[in-house]
Amino acid sequence: MTLPTAVSLREVGPRDGLQNEDPVPTDAKVALINGLSRTGVSRIEAVSFVHPRAIPQMADADEAWARVERNPAVTYSALVPNSRGASRAIDAGFTDIEVVVSASDTHNRRNVNRSTDDSLADVAEIIKQVHDAGGNLEVIVSTAWGCPYEGEVPVSRVVDVARRAVDAGADALTYGDTTGMATPTRVIDLVTRTRETMRDVPLALHFHNTRGMGLANVVAGLQAGVVRFEGCLGGLGGCPFAPGATGNVCTEDVVHMLESMGCDTGVDLDRLLAASRRLREIVGHEMPGQVVKAGKSSDVHPVPSKV
Amino acid sequence: MTLPTAVSLREVGPRDGLQNEDPVPTDAKVALINGLSRTGVSRIEAVSFVHPRAIPQMADADEAWARVERNPAVTYSALVPNSRGASRAIDAGFTDIEVVVSASDTHNRRNVNRSTDDSLADVAEIIKQVHDAGGNLEVIVSTAWGCPYEGEVPVSRVVDVARRAVDAGADALTYGDTTGMATPTRVIDLVTRTRETMRDVPLALHFHNTRGMGLANVVAGLQAGVVRFEGCLGGLGGCPFAPGATGNVCTEDVVHMLESMGCDTGVDLDRLLAASRRLREIVGHEMPGQVVKAGKSSDVHPVPSKV
Repeated sequence: MTLPTAVSLREVGPRDGLQNEDPVPTDAKVALINGLSRTGVSRIEAVSFVHPRAIPQMADADEAWARVERNPAVTYSALVPNSRGASRAIDAGFTDIEVVVSASDTHNRRNVNRSTDDSLADVAEIIKQVHDAGGNLEVIVSTAWGCPYEGEVPVSRVVDVARRAVDAGADALTYGDTTGMATPTRVIDLVTRTRETMRDVPLALHFHNTRGMGLANVVAGLQAGVVRFEGCLGGLGGCPFAPGATGNVCTEDVVHMLESMGCDTGVDLDRLLAASRRLREIVGHEMPGQVVKAGKSSDVHPVPSKV
Repeated sequence: MTLPTAVSLREVGPRDGLQNEDPVPTDAKVALINGLSRTGVSRIEAVSFVHPRAIPQMADADEAWARVERNPAVTYSALVPNSRGASRAIDAGFTDIEVVVSASDTHNRRNVNRSTDDSLADVAEIIKQVHDAGGNLEVIVSTAWGCPYEGEVPVSRVVDVARRAVDAGADALTYGDTTGMATPTRVIDLVTRTRETMRDVPLALHFHNTRGMGLANVVAGLQAGVVRFEGCLGGLGGCPFAPGATGNVCTEDVVHMLESMGCDTGVDLDRLLAASRRLREIVGHEMPGQVVKAGKSSDVHPVPSKV
């Protein structure tokens, strides 16, 4: 098994993780981002600029971001739902901006009340807007391996949506496994098919551990040559279709696995585990991440004295 | 990614799973085994024959086994710690018997108060005893990827222990990742090294999901050509070194992943999920398995009417 020797991770806890929790104080949010900024992680999804009635957890996005101690080694990004959000992100000083479009038409309509085609037209406008402001726009193609309403989404459909985003000028792509339907073989299939026509665009994978396959899918992505992954501290995040299910793949578990396999993440795992323990205090409940509970594989235990 | 088209699974819940729980009534244990026997799983580790003071959960092994409705399509096995246990298993009618030896000398001494070498000598005697009775003896090499006291166990050491067991007549091998220290790359490494000298001996892999890598390690095993795996219903089992950590890789999550990838397990997933829900009632607490909570990837949800 030949794997890349290094990968770049984006931590999505401050946005994707906290969005699925009761709103937390701005102080806690700022402390979380600052703590993450000191772990060595190269990219952090810091906030989203959405209407506070839609997502009250992000109502303090401007204030939180203004108070973050920016680490020049970290690329911070903001997620926006539309042109209005993109304007707010640009005004707040973000140069890395993300927008989501669902490969599943039904899922896209359910989320934003418009077709995937209409959303792609909007995306093209937002790309222009962000480029005019000197920024980079990344398109996240959600339901890339399946839709809770439509079932499996054909690879050709996902690649077509990605292709149209890239043709419109997207600087990078992320495939999101929104409800945890990816399998290792399907990960390799989609990445391979994507690379046939989009060889050079930066491609990231965002997995959920809904059905336990999160880390297996990360390994499959690595085997397909992907070197950009997303994770969420503590494994927060969730899936409205499965109330008891786990959420995003857990960043510290990803880092633990990758580093154990000799794949450099740039992340100091001990600092990341400390950040995870602080996040647990912030959210006030157990989180799905496992290394924080089990300890690292490299932890050696004392032999009980009776031996 | 080329994977085997079919695998054989052994369900270890009635033994390995229940051993880590408060003792359950014999009726519940018999019902669990009978239910599993009807799922299509090809092998079930039914009981262990150990001293009831050491493991009170297995004190009713003889009675439980006597009351199981044997399905001729299922291979039932019993775990034994020593020659005395092997005699009990043979007397009870088992023809498939398992014995454990730890690749880590420290771990072996801690568990059975003797060196790995001494245990291998015992194993040779038990193999003879079981063969004389017309049975098959499988040797489980535990701590195959790491020991909580010694850290990583060298591949050469693990292969040497396996080799000596096979030379003594072992009919099959299982590598056990006792405390969840395997990684996909190390799985492939150990299997590849093992196959260099032991090409034909049936080889199974037993993973724990302690640090989230359980299913990733199963996929790595498949990629290395392994077609025999173990799992535990609900993901029960545990690790005394990590009280909050999860246990064995969860059988229904393994089946869900393998079947989703077109790898035939012979198991009816719906029946297995039903058995998992009944096991949850028996043990009386949430279990780590995720598909039973999240539903199958193939479950399609109705679109909310507001769309």
